Amino acid sequence: MLKEECGIFGIYGIPEASRYVYLGLNFLQHRGQEACGIVSTDGRYLYKQVGLGKVTDFFDEEKISYLEGTKAIGHVRYSTTGSSTLINAQPISAVTSKGAIAIAHNGNITNASEIRESLIKKGKIFHSTSDSEVILHLISDAPFEDIVNSCRWAFRQLEGAYSLLILTRDFIIAARDPLGFRPLSMGYIGSGLLDEPETIVFSSEDSAFTIVEATKRKDVNPNEMVVCSQAGINFMKIVDKESEKKQCVFELIYFSKPSSVVFDKLVYDFRFKIGEILAKEFPVEADYVIPVPDSGIVAALGYSKYSGIPFAMGLIRSHYIGRTFIEPSQKIRDFGVKMKFIPVRELIEGKRIVLIDDSIVRGTTSKKIIKMVRSLNPKEIHFRVASPPVKNPCFYGIDFSTREELLANKLNTFEEIAEFIGADSVGYISVESMFENTGINKKDFCKACFDGLYPTKLREFKKEGFENDIKQDDIR
Amino acid sequence: MLKEECGIFGIYGIPEASRYVYLGLNFLQHRGQEACGIVSTDGRYLYKQVGLGKVTDFFDEEKISYLEGTKAIGHVRYSTTGSSTLINAQPISAVTSKGAIAIAHNGNITNASEIRESLIKKGKIFHSTSDSEVILHLISDAPFEDIVNSCRWAFRQLEGAYSLLILTRDFIIAARDPLGFRPLSMGYIGSGLLDEPETIVFSSEDSAFTIVEATKRKDVNPNEMVVCSQAGINFMKIVDKESEKKQCVFELIYFSKPSSVVFDKLVYDFRFKIGEILAKEFPVEADYVIPVPDSGIVAALGYSKYSGIPFAMGLIRSHYIGRTFIEPSQKIRDFGVKMKFIPVRELIEGKRIVLIDDSIVRGTTSKKIIKMVRSLNPKEIHFRVASPPVKNPCFYGIDFSTREELLANKLNTFEEIAEFIGADSVGYISVESMFENTGINKKDFCKACFDGLYPTKLREFKKEGFENDIKQDDIR
Amino acid sequence: MLKEECGIFGIYGIPEASRYVYLGLNFLQHRGQEACGIVSTDGRYLYKQVGLGKVTDFFDEEKISYLEGTKAIGHVRYSTTGSSTLINAQPISAVTSKGAIAIAHNGNITNASEIRESLIKKGKIFHSTSDSEVILHLISDAPFEDIVNSCRWAFRQLEGAYSLLILTRDFIIAARDPLGFRPLSMGYIGSGLLDEPETIVFSSEDSAFTIVEATKRKDVNPNEMVVCSQAGINFMKIVDKESEKKQCVFELIYFSKPSSVVFDKLVYDFRFKIGEILAKEFPVEADYVIPVPDSGIVAALGYSKYSGIPFAMGLIRSHYIGRTFIEPSQKIRDFGVKMKFIPVRELIEGKRIVLIDDSIVRGTTSKKIIKMVRSLNPKEIHFRVASPPVKNPCFYGIDFSTREELLANKLNTFEEIAEFIGADSVGYISVESMFENTGINKKDFCKACFDGLYPTKLREFKKEGFENDIKQDDIR
Amino acid sequence: MLKEECGIFGIYGIPEASRYVYLGLNFLQHRGQEACGIVSTDGRYLYKQVGLGKVTDFFDEEKISYLEGTKAIGHVRYSTTGSSTLINAQPISAVTSKGAIAIAHNGNITNASEIRESLIKKGKIFHSTSDSEVILHLISDAPFEDIVNSCRWAFRQLEGAYSLLILTRDFIIAARDPLGFRPLSMGYIGSGLLDEPETIVFSSEDSAFTIVEATKRKDVNPNEMVVCSQAGINFMKIVDKESEKKQCVFELIYFSKPSSVVFDKLVYDFRFKIGEILAKEFPVEADYVIPVPDSGIVAALGYSKYSGIPFAMGLIRSHYIGRTFIEPSQKIRDFGVKMKFIPVRELIEGKRIVLIDDSIVRGTTSKKIIKMVRSLNPKEIHFRVASPPVKNPCFYGIDFSTREELLANKLNTFEEIAEFIGADSVGYISVESMFENTGINKKDFCKACFDGLYPTKLREFKKEGFENDIKQDDIR
Repeated sequence: MLKEECGIFGIYGIPEASRYVYLGLNFLQHRGQEACGIVSTDGRYLYKQVGLGKVTDFFDEEKISYLEGTKAIGHVRYSTTGSSTLINAQPISAVTSKGAIAIAHNGNITNASEIRESLIKKGKIFHSTSDSEVILHLISDAPFEDIVNSCRWAFRQLEGAYSLLILTRDFIIAARDPLGFRPLSMGYIGSGLLDEPETIVFSSEDSAFTIVEATKRKDVNPNEMVVCSQAGINFMKIVDKESEKKQCVFELIYFSKPSSVVFDKLVYDFRFKIGEILAKEFPVEADYVIPVPDSGIVAALGYSKYSGIPFAMGLIRSHYIGRTFIEPSQKIRDFGVKMKFIPVRELIEGKRIVLIDDSIVRGTTSKKIIKMVRSLNPKEIHFRVASPPVKNPCFYGIDFSTREELLANKLNTFEEIAEFIGADSVGYISVESMFENTGINKKDFCKACFDGLYPTKLREFKKEGFENDIKQDDIR
Repeated sequence: MLKEECGIFGIYGIPEASRYVYLGLNFLQHRGQEACGIVSTDGRYLYKQVGLGKVTDFFDEEKISYLEGTKAIGHVRYSTTGSSTLINAQPISAVTSKGAIAIAHNGNITNASEIRESLIKKGKIFHSTSDSEVILHLISDAPFEDIVNSCRWAFRQLEGAYSLLILTRDFIIAARDPLGFRPLSMGYIGSGLLDEPETIVFSSEDSAFTIVEATKRKDVNPNEMVVCSQAGINFMKIVDKESEKKQCVFELIYFSKPSSVVFDKLVYDFRFKIGEILAKEFPVEADYVIPVPDSGIVAALGYSKYSGIPFAMGLIRSHYIGRTFIEPSQKIRDFGVKMKFIPVRELIEGKRIVLIDDSIVRGTTSKKIIKMVRSLNPKEIHFRVASPPVKNPCFYGIDFSTREELLANKLNTFEEIAEFIGADSVGYISVESMFENTGINKKDFCKACFDGLYPTKLREFKKEGFENDIKQDDIR
Repeated sequence: MLKEECGIFGIYGIPEASRYVYLGLNFLQHRGQEACGIVSTDGRYLYKQVGLGKVTDFFDEEKISYLEGTKAIGHVRYSTTGSSTLINAQPISAVTSKGAIAIAHNGNITNASEIRESLIKKGKIFHSTSDSEVILHLISDAPFEDIVNSCRWAFRQLEGAYSLLILTRDFIIAARDPLGFRPLSMGYIGSGLLDEPETIVFSSEDSAFTIVEATKRKDVNPNEMVVCSQAGINFMKIVDKESEKKQCVFELIYFSKPSSVVFDKLVYDFRFKIGEILAKEFPVEADYVIPVPDSGIVAALGYSKYSGIPFAMGLIRSHYIGRTFIEPSQKIRDFGVKMKFIPVRELIEGKRIVLIDDSIVRGTTSKKIIKMVRSLNPKEIHFRVASPPVKNPCFYGIDFSTREELLANKLNTFEEIAEFIGADSVGYISVESMFENTGINKKDFCKACFDGLYPTKLREFKKEGFENDIKQDDIR
Repeated sequence: MLKEECGIFGIYGIPEASRYVYLGLNFLQHRGQEACGIVSTDGRYLYKQVGLGKVTDFFDEEKISYLEGTKAIGHVRYSTTGSSTLINAQPISAVTSKGAIAIAHNGNITNASEIRESLIKKGKIFHSTSDSEVILHLISDAPFEDIVNSCRWAFRQLEGAYSLLILTRDFIIAARDPLGFRPLSMGYIGSGLLDEPETIVFSSEDSAFTIVEATKRKDVNPNEMVVCSQAGINFMKIVDKESEKKQCVFELIYFSKPSSVVFDKLVYDFRFKIGEILAKEFPVEADYVIPVPDSGIVAALGYSKYSGIPFAMGLIRSHYIGRTFIEPSQKIRDFGVKMKFIPVRELIEGKRIVLIDDSIVRGTTSKKIIKMVRSLNPKEIHFRVASPPVKNPCFYGIDFSTREELLANKLNTFEEIAEFIGADSVGYISVESMFENTGINKKDFCKACFDGLYPTKLREFKKEGFENDIKQDDIR
């Protein structure tokens, strides 16, 4: 239901680099399914293939073969602009004063509109509304000859969230913004001796390393640039004075796979613990704990363990992949939900059940799921949410609805929410519990979507103005 | 891993019938993903759309709109003959002496080759090697004027497994062979009063009814024909003397969705109980019970409950959908398994784990999974199989490997099997336990793949001869 | 504008036979662009690829590689049943009592409906409405063991038009009906010694031989079967008593390429001569003779030569290939014609022009062309038609409009026709002139579309009944 | 055989503007078939659809519907960079300091590399190697606020050939370089009163106006900008001091359709006259004048008229559209030529023929055609070329071969050329005759490909260096 901007994957120093990136992007497919792309280099040219759709739909042997060389970066993206346009697909690339550069970017630059406007005033031209194009311009404009200092100079102009990979003929540069909103991990293939680097791999999530048989070395730190070149690997800071980390807690709640260790925390553990806390804070007598699959499964296991209520797969996922809805004129009630989940009548009818989902944004899907479950006549439905109430929009890369549509904004009490979605009771974990009991450090995380405390200058209204401006003179 | 021939879905008496069949086939997609098709009728013409690939890939608004009328049947199929041929895709259709007929068939007719040969000798011509074409010929040849008696006459010639749907301008006829190998359920949309039938729905699995908002009435019984026409619904026997049922127990073990009630047994319950029995018969001290997703999940929950060992999703499914494998020349070890399952290191490393899978056929996939899990250094891996050892090929619609390739045939003891697949121990449920403790009646089931007791005349060698013959004069 | 059923091409005795058929079908593409197909054999299996669209659109390297063997036949077809169905695409194939057989057929069997009905009554089933399926049944039913006698027996049951190619594991059999409606030529690749046949080629038009570097040997004669097998080439008669030939004169008028020698007449010569006769019989003072390209070009050259009026390409063909018309809501007048022909203003404005087209069927296109030309203000437009007035439908393979729509049926005089299409005068060649002066023998030709003298039993009304019957129980 | 960069079409002030551009581009398809695109505007946004392939293949109703608004420009392109890349497809667009701008460009800017390099040094970034991107940067950098002066300033920096269309939210600006290399015509739909302009149309060739029912008003003059906006139409000069025109004579010889009036000369007339001159200067006794279709047809008519030798269509075009060549392993001799042209044996065998082609570049195709014709045993083959010998590469938009490959460079005499291509004699028109007798003014034309007199600063070597540079840092 939530949409994030992307996943990124890169590899330095291996034959057929693009094939590894293809495999890595496949694993990261859950982070964006609307567009994908890879840029590779053989040290002479940059080769680029970017297209709409899933990785396995867009890429074929011919396209992958075209992507020559031993270095490559790739991107999967949730596109917000409709299926017919490629304009914002990534990686993007350009020839700059520092040579040919490609960039794959996950996050959202909050001062992109100001930079963009000032660059346009200086005569720069923009082919897209992508933040990445802004970054390319900054690198080109940087008052340095070399790519490394130019990148650092460029990054210093940016506010907001960026985990990114930059590819040139000679370099792959990975970087994570000083607050570290989005994850980025680093691994290697080969001996793994620090002074003998063979092949370096970067990925939004470390469990993608398994597919390419890489080993994790570390996360790219907030405020860190990692420079891979023939000279070896260099780690450097982006800004001199470090601030606190503000990592996106929603990566743990929803985006990342349970198998990934994100921000030094195994996602599986986090969600399991959340489930336990939910059980402790919102106990209820029930026959089954049933997850909304797949994202609710781990929290449901935690709830079941703490409460002793048996876990059951009462909703079976149906792997419907249709983009367009073909249904009879006499519409089927709650069609979308029915195409996704099939309830197991015998686990529901006459039973008291606890339903676990990862989060509630607008509440409409939860409402439909409960209505469908209710039609099988359970005795009671208790809805438990494995995150705090989402009350504020995100400016760092998550495409929540507008503030007005957020259910926890419209309704004040759990009772009202329960009534709205049709549950007998509702429970959310609190922000405090999320940090007190899950083994992560509150001060290291951005939780603005819950408490409204944005860790960067708030450019909210400015941003909306920016979107309007852009729309007026944009190329669609 | 296992391949079955198909799923079928039909609906009688509703506007836009083909759209309902489209939705039903979507739900049945797990039963066959290589070809699909729908035939509908408006009482004047039969309209047909058959193609390769998944339901949502092949059908679009234009194709569905072409399929006019209030009656329709459909089919999803696992095609054994390569992606470039449509020749055996279903439903198939022909103009016969009884009018235009379409047929969607799940199962395998064991005397099809004899019938086919004798029909060819009589001058009949065959466009495919499909059993369904044999059935169409028999209906056309039947010494009756009307379609109902012609169908019954034809069915009486058949040996083996068939659950099928027949569509003519005026009728939908559903039938299940006297032994009832394959499932077929019947539901309705509307008032549900027996004397006021509005819309009748047939499906290989009853939980598909949820999507089209139909209610289950009953299973089509073994040896039963259900005739839907303007005259209402008629139930009749195929052969006069009824035999015991021989329903395919693998439907419960693997094919059907956990949400379906198949042969009067909820699949979820069956698998959960199997898990409990496994825990009882093959107990082990361990830290986690981990399923091979998705088919092993429910049995793992049962194992966990009985044993008290915590259930954990230690293998995360990656929804890789690529048909062709793009990988580096330096092949990735156990590539296919890695593209499908990502292990959660923290749930495995240093742990004693029980791995649960639904069945072992050739053993190669189990071996690869265990190798991948082993690479994360668990203390112990205990493999538990939620079915008895598969020792014999199936002639009723499951595409097992040849007898020689079946692991439980090649190796005699659990110790040998454990050594082969790399597990510290192996346990299978026994055939006896499967029937004694799961609430299903042994005499009602075909379990030939386990015990070699085939319920029909054995035409095994004949069948192989048949395939050779056909290949020699076949049209590819 | 006219639609014929097909072109056929076959080759016997050469490695990669299907690649030669692919090339031959390419050349024959003008005879049908809606569906195409090839069946080949390596002596063990028949391999088949049939699809919608043009030869170069449907076939790719993968499909051609699948078509193994040294014998192959192919077909291009104008499908009358809409782009969404493959059901009547050719070649069609079946396993019969005489083994596996494929057939590619050009023409129309006028007693197909009677045969079909009687076969259905005998219990035979039909998957399509194609005449070829009728032929396959007859061959299977023939009271002979061998394929050659079975084919001859089957052909003897047929009335109407057929030039066809039959492929079995061992044979290619070419045949042309006793009246010889449709053309079929035979060539060879290699030494060409009659007693040392290497590779035999068959084609609807002999100029396709150029592409595959074959040499023409002869036409397959009316009433002739040519049997190619390991035993060499055998020529035999179909029926014992030969009748007069009734070859389709429209092959010379419109269908065949000017480079082909059809019915022993070079098409180019025939059309050129027609042009000369038109000039002689319908002289006019004018500035330019302008053809409607491409089919009117050669006749226009003849008209120009005889009359001394300069030939000019006053209409330039625009190679628009769109299937669907995208145009503004405010429709462009005579859109279809404008997308096809661009007039050269300077050759028309203020000029007296003679426009030459191959034929007029319904007259609507001619009307639109003249309207477009008229908009450039020529002084006079004289329309000359390089064929006699079409007054009757064809039952031998040309898809003319219904009798009611034929312009020369609706209007009685050239004056009326001129007024209808907007020309200053109209001239058609007469049936008599067409035969007296072009060097072809009147008695050897079917000219029923002009004079209504059908050379076979007239099954016109029957045929219409047949179509209705079929539609009622057809599978679309 | 020759490749030009493109055709452009635009329309100002009509509902559904993009549909008109779609039709116009269809007509211009012969000018480039590898990529196409349209950008439209409704005064608020620019909408863009650019893709590979022909206009009717790429565009569909959905894409056209997306292109809203009353102003639109489009482009067809011959892409030199392989089918897998879209990077240089046009129109290209960007948001600049002057607002959103799209540009469609036909021609070649000879100082693009210098400008590009200096812009990159100033920090500008380039996403493509297209000249159009250079122009966009210049417009953005221009020291003016308004788009009109900015465009003029930008154009003044350019050397070389450009006929282009610029689209902004409010304007369409058409421009032709001061030497006027490439054609560009202007028409209108509506009343045609100069003070009441309704809808303005621009097209590379005026005969495209017919399709959209527009009327030609004039050519855009060399050195002219035409500015269409709500303020009406403004005509202005680009540079103050006008030079002589240097229009590309190859537009008359080969590129444009015979129906077009290009540079005030009807292409048909020009080619016809060339044919007459050829007949006068290189007379020969012969039986037939035969064109290489389609581009040689009109000149052959002229040759025939002057010489009195009958014109005959001795080579029939086969509309083969395959991109990939499927042929047997045992290659067919001169395959490509055979797939395109089928000779009419009876017009060639034993005959003395004059073959007319538009031009000879490398000579390889001519050689193959003559070899094929020769295989039919003509008595003599006299080759006549409807243009002077091509001796020099073009830097203004034609993709000739390298200088070394040009046949007329490698061989000095007509005798040598005749021997090389296998003709009995060869004749080319002379540069002098081309201008003396065809009614066009020598000083108004660029004929550098014939005489080496390049009308702009020669950047030949520089250009080659430029290509190397670009390749080294290009993004493919």
